Amino acid sequence: MTLPFKLSAQSTETAARCGTFKTAHGEVKTPVFMPVGTLGTVKALTPEDLLQAGAQIILGNTYHLYLRPGCEVIEPFGGLHRFMHWPGPILTDSGGFQIFSLAKLLKMSEDGATFQSHIDGSRHLLTPEKSIEIQIALDSDIIMCLDQCIAYPAAKEEARAALELTTRWAQRCLTTWQAKARPDSALFGIVQGGMFPDLRQQSVEALVALDFPGYAIGGLSVGEPTDLMLEMAEHALPLLPSDRPRYIMGVGTPENLIELVARGADMFDCVLPTRNARNGQFFTSQGTVNISNARFRTDPTPVDPDCACYTCRNYSRAYLRHLYTARELLAYRLNSIHNIYYYTHLMAQMRQAIAEDRFKAFRRHFYRMRQGGAG
Amino acid sequence: MTLPFKLSAQSTETAARCGTFKTAHGEVKTPVFMPVGTLGTVKALTPEDLLQAGAQIILGNTYHLYLRPGCEVIEPFGGLHRFMHWPGPILTDSGGFQIFSLAKLLKMSEDGATFQSHIDGSRHLLTPEKSIEIQIALDSDIIMCLDQCIAYPAAKEEARAALELTTRWAQRCLTTWQAKARPDSALFGIVQGGMFPDLRQQSVEALVALDFPGYAIGGLSVGEPTDLMLEMAEHALPLLPSDRPRYIMGVGTPENLIELVARGADMFDCVLPTRNARNGQFFTSQGTVNISNARFRTDPTPVDPDCACYTCRNYSRAYLRHLYTARELLAYRLNSIHNIYYYTHLMAQMRQAIAEDRFKAFRRHFYRMRQGGAG
Repeated sequence: MTLPFKLSAQSTETAARCGTFKTAHGEVKTPVFMPVGTLGTVKALTPEDLLQAGAQIILGNTYHLYLRPGCEVIEPFGGLHRFMHWPGPILTDSGGFQIFSLAKLLKMSEDGATFQSHIDGSRHLLTPEKSIEIQIALDSDIIMCLDQCIAYPAAKEEARAALELTTRWAQRCLTTWQAKARPDSALFGIVQGGMFPDLRQQSVEALVALDFPGYAIGGLSVGEPTDLMLEMAEHALPLLPSDRPRYIMGVGTPENLIELVARGADMFDCVLPTRNARNGQFFTSQGTVNISNARFRTDPTPVDPDCACYTCRNYSRAYLRHLYTARELLAYRLNSIHNIYYYTHLMAQMRQAIAEDRFKAFRRHFYRMRQGGAG
Repeated sequence: MTLPFKLSAQSTETAARCGTFKTAHGEVKTPVFMPVGTLGTVKALTPEDLLQAGAQIILGNTYHLYLRPGCEVIEPFGGLHRFMHWPGPILTDSGGFQIFSLAKLLKMSEDGATFQSHIDGSRHLLTPEKSIEIQIALDSDIIMCLDQCIAYPAAKEEARAALELTTRWAQRCLTTWQAKARPDSALFGIVQGGMFPDLRQQSVEALVALDFPGYAIGGLSVGEPTDLMLEMAEHALPLLPSDRPRYIMGVGTPENLIELVARGADMFDCVLPTRNARNGQFFTSQGTVNISNARFRTDPTPVDPDCACYTCRNYSRAYLRHLYTARELLAYRLNSIHNIYYYTHLMAQMRQAIAEDRFKAFRRHFYRMRQGGAG
């Protein structure tokens, strides 16, 4: 039970690398960005929109789907893919981060996390075994271990206790996954350790000893400065086995992705492109564009002249501004299509730059374009 | 300046008929249902969705577009088609109904209607000339005369005064259209007269004397019982010249459309399919379905087993219920696609039944399916 992962190129100037992994629902080229489909839908988009926008794999949120509509609704469909009509691979998170960030956490014990639903206040106990069982019910292609997330900043003793609990839970997740999951699924361990390099190393070593098909770095982008986030990733990434995919959870901006790919990361997820789209912010080759700006009122040009997405090929800034300021439903969709395309296209550009061993030049060009600025 | 309209079939059992009219943006087969694209978007749908759902022509609201984003934004694009990326024909209403139903009407005079915007309270005067000029700026294929709408019930003298003002305005609209519109656009006169058959006749005669390319019946579906609505339509429709398209404005349910086609109507628009979709109500071959119903929680079947729309081909009731109850944006779109398809497909079925001269049998079958019931 391992994830077939093949590296195809390695940058000689940086730690950036390209590869492919195979799942029962298709291949994924890395580095890859995974759009977030919290409730069994990437907000405002159909699976066809996602494919057209270049998505290869999406993320489903175990916490959300467990509460609504519930596994008993999704499981009879054979899993989340058929339920939501998405043909490609799905990675599910463990629910750990949402319990920490969204639910009311009532009690954290060796057994698991007791929390109150943010929807109806109902009480639930999520154990490592239960998290894996839910993800198996969702027919997830890549299953994540349940981890304990902590706030930033945190005292070292708190960070140590959380990582050690996360490690013990990782063993229980592994046992459950080996016993119950389909053999062509993968389980990823999650590195914790707060902002303490030695704890990050301790976490990596404990997880690598368990030999997971892939590894994630969790507990980043929780409020710390970007420099610190990059420092932690730069410290932990080279400690992970190079023949396994490395996933940085919940990060981030286009700049973050470039910097993390340069440090050897392969997989990313973030709500930024879709959430910001719904707030009228476009990511473009020249920086971010806030479409509600009055200067776009009669602007006949596309949001990003360099973009080949459905939105940029067919709609003007004036029209998108009109839809957004009138709060028309179509705005959320057209904006999301562009931002997802922007992210997947950025990853594709990085893959090509790595394959051609010109990643540094690509990165320089990226930052130079930004200085031109779109506002 | 006439609308090229060819009748291709006439039911021998009813007044139902089939035809085709040509516009600069394509042909339209009648009877036809026009989805409502109030603000330069049929809510939640792209033009591609609309085409895939069978839409031939859409309606734009002059009142809304004049206020937001304004003609000065749309006109430089060459009109509404290019602004919103809709390649097909567009019919625009005159704004008369919205001034009556949505804005605060401050003063109705011979000159025009003074109203306050429902958005920002700004004051505007809409004259017949101005309404036509706005519709020309939108590059409308079918332009509607400005009419005065009245409430239901209304005293006969009020209804008479409104229809006579509407007639005088129709003359002014015609003059403006002849002077300024592109020659391949069409202008429709609007029959008023409240619920008074003799006033409806007076209105028809006055408008027919002006020789419009097409005629609409306005002031229906304003709160009157369905029987009365049908009685008025049945009275007025045969008075209209048979070689011109006949459009019943703002109506209605699938049953209404069938009954009005049986009485000789050719064109319809209504917000019902899209608005009800956004409220979780589906139109199906077996009646309406409220998707929030708990009995659909795990239902793996499509909303309408007889439907070939994108939504019914790819999604279950359980998934649609989940999206709708979670207020996911995708719900509004998937629901709207189905309802638009249902309406356009119903019209296509009627056209075929008329062409094969079996309209009465079609109507019987339609009502029999309803008795089976979907709930």
